[in-house]
Amino acid sequence: MELVVQKYGGSSVKDAERVMNVANRIVEEYRKGNNVVVAVSAQGDTTDDLIEKANEINPKASKREMDMLLSTGEQISIALLAMAIEKLGCPVVSLTGWQAGIRTKATYGNARIDKIDTERLHAELDKRNIVIVAGFQGINKYDDITTLGRGGSDTTAVALAAALNADVCEIYTDVDGVYTTDPRIVKNAKKLDDISYDEMLELASLGANVLHNRSVEMAKKYNVKLCVRSSLSKAEGTFVKEVEEVEKMLVRGVTRDNDVARIALCGLDDTPGKAFQIFSLLAKNNINVDIILQSIGNESSKDISFTVTKGNLEQALKLLKENNAVIGAKEVKSKSDVSKVSIVGAGMVNNPGVAALMFEALYDAHVNIHMIATSEIKVSVLIDEKDAERAVVAIHDKFKLGE
Amino acid sequence: MELVVQKYGGSSVKDAERVMNVANRIVEEYRKGNNVVVAVSAQGDTTDDLIEKANEINPKASKREMDMLLSTGEQISIALLAMAIEKLGCPVVSLTGWQAGIRTKATYGNARIDKIDTERLHAELDKRNIVIVAGFQGINKYDDITTLGRGGSDTTAVALAAALNADVCEIYTDVDGVYTTDPRIVKNAKKLDDISYDEMLELASLGANVLHNRSVEMAKKYNVKLCVRSSLSKAEGTFVKEVEEVEKMLVRGVTRDNDVARIALCGLDDTPGKAFQIFSLLAKNNINVDIILQSIGNESSKDISFTVTKGNLEQALKLLKENNAVIGAKEVKSKSDVSKVSIVGAGMVNNPGVAALMFEALYDAHVNIHMIATSEIKVSVLIDEKDAERAVVAIHDKFKLGE
Repeated sequence: MELVVQKYGGSSVKDAERVMNVANRIVEEYRKGNNVVVAVSAQGDTTDDLIEKANEINPKASKREMDMLLSTGEQISIALLAMAIEKLGCPVVSLTGWQAGIRTKATYGNARIDKIDTERLHAELDKRNIVIVAGFQGINKYDDITTLGRGGSDTTAVALAAALNADVCEIYTDVDGVYTTDPRIVKNAKKLDDISYDEMLELASLGANVLHNRSVEMAKKYNVKLCVRSSLSKAEGTFVKEVEEVEKMLVRGVTRDNDVARIALCGLDDTPGKAFQIFSLLAKNNINVDIILQSIGNESSKDISFTVTKGNLEQALKLLKENNAVIGAKEVKSKSDVSKVSIVGAGMVNNPGVAALMFEALYDAHVNIHMIATSEIKVSVLIDEKDAERAVVAIHDKFKLGE
Repeated sequence: MELVVQKYGGSSVKDAERVMNVANRIVEEYRKGNNVVVAVSAQGDTTDDLIEKANEINPKASKREMDMLLSTGEQISIALLAMAIEKLGCPVVSLTGWQAGIRTKATYGNARIDKIDTERLHAELDKRNIVIVAGFQGINKYDDITTLGRGGSDTTAVALAAALNADVCEIYTDVDGVYTTDPRIVKNAKKLDDISYDEMLELASLGANVLHNRSVEMAKKYNVKLCVRSSLSKAEGTFVKEVEEVEKMLVRGVTRDNDVARIALCGLDDTPGKAFQIFSLLAKNNINVDIILQSIGNESSKDISFTVTKGNLEQALKLLKENNAVIGAKEVKSKSDVSKVSIVGAGMVNNPGVAALMFEALYDAHVNIHMIATSEIKVSVLIDEKDAERAVVAIHDKFKLGE
């Protein structure tokens, strides 16, 4: 008997028909003789509808009350999914985050899971119940309901798989796996059979939108074998796990992220502490910075440029201008019609030619590069948004990823 | 400083405007310097919408999962109401049933409150927080969510008032108090300033639809002073409490209940155990019986007639016919176009002329009486449904209740 953890997103349970479809999949797994624990998100637009209800009353509502409100979305899903499974004649029990023992940090709106008290979960599994757990939510030390922020249900599933020592954690979504690049852009994009945690982390953070980073990080930490697959087809998905022989494949995928904007602070004094002043200011205001570059300027001045999400651009510029008396930039420039295109592959660290091949592809395609950033397993370039699709196709071809 | 418990029903919080209106009322009470605990129901049609969602998937869903589903309705309400109060600048915290320590029996769908662990409630009140509690729900010994059945939010409010030893428990509804009879039928119906628990109990069970019986019973048991008033006006409501000098007022109100049907079993053997056979059969099938009359028949046979709700009539007849081999009625008759009209008043027990006055009123109005039942503080008659309104007006006039 295996223990399988499954996660279904909001679109997989958006209406009665989809709920029955998911129930059938779960029951199929259960009838193989396996134990099944399921994490499920709120139905379709439920969360958006609840946010709208809140905004009508108080757009500045506290995060605690928002969590109280939003957590009802998943509670509705688990009850409905359990009812669907009851209809199919299998023993089932739904559990909210707190009933499933999911303890989080005190932070509302974006809480981290601390630990899972598995007593109730084990008791239900011992009774051979299918266990349906509300994703995206937990309970903090004050016994208040918390939500886990974006991608929270993925994190719930991985945390359950880790705590219960599950054999596999299947993440059901509306795509049937992880691709070498976005299949909507590149016709011959290829589905990967497996991918390493680190590669998946880079892909996720670069906009592949399949799995949330926090869940992949947690899967890596606890060595949870993930499988990304479609809730609408029977196709084999992509496994995310420790992949050996990484050198066989240099580059695994090409990603594009349009939600990026560049800010450049020019003519800064070349004195210690400038970077600290700038980035601690942004961090204090919860603005995440992605690529950071510092130019080697002339003797007495330097330029620092970096990227933020498009949504944070305006606030970041406002903060920088308000504090420019301290920072002392001669000029603050920004550009928002940009995209980040990246290649990811655990093998590239030992192959210095990889970045050069990417730049060659961009040169061939007449794409101008604004910024470059590299890590051990990725190379990212910032380019004009209008060039992004062309760049993805050119790079995908250059590395022969469709073959 | 007083401790005031308030309860708002679903229509009082049905949309953003109503929620803000309720928030204003609560804040007004709080700013007098009082502590305020509020029990609130699900918004408007939320519960019906959730039931529909469940029926689409599985009309025979378990009660446990129905409770899991339905309890989200009140959780949405408490979060929204707390947000509205935050907007008005007052410290507030919303609590689900389990967070508020409301422990119930294990039964799903219609659980009774066992006790309230008031630790968290007291902690929040000590911080001078307004406390918003989800009505209609609690938690059982398995840590599962339960709901309290019809009128559950009233019961939540009274239980909170009892457990916290509140000075008053205000039940806000869409009428501004308890009337001598239905103001839609009798123009000069009069609002009562106060009424005793027992009178209120009879009125509630006789179809006055203002307060649920369970909540009044609990209020009586724990001596909680209730006040029924409108959430839409500033009018003083009706107090429900131990009323002294009950003899001053013989009859407090006239009620009508159309949801009633009569069944008559004629020609039963006059042997012991007939009533037991009939009513245990009905009880086992969860059919509540109201008025019961047994005629004095001839030497060897008797008739038993009783009333059930119209919705139970068909099932009751089916059961009685199926079991008539044992029961042995010569004839089973039924009549569903009937109404029950009653007068209620704690003073009537010492005044034998009261029932006679009621019958006189009915005679004057040419209303034929099918059944009569009396208790210490009420007299009920079963009459044709078409005569009911005329009967209510005639009785109300006869007892000069409008004066």
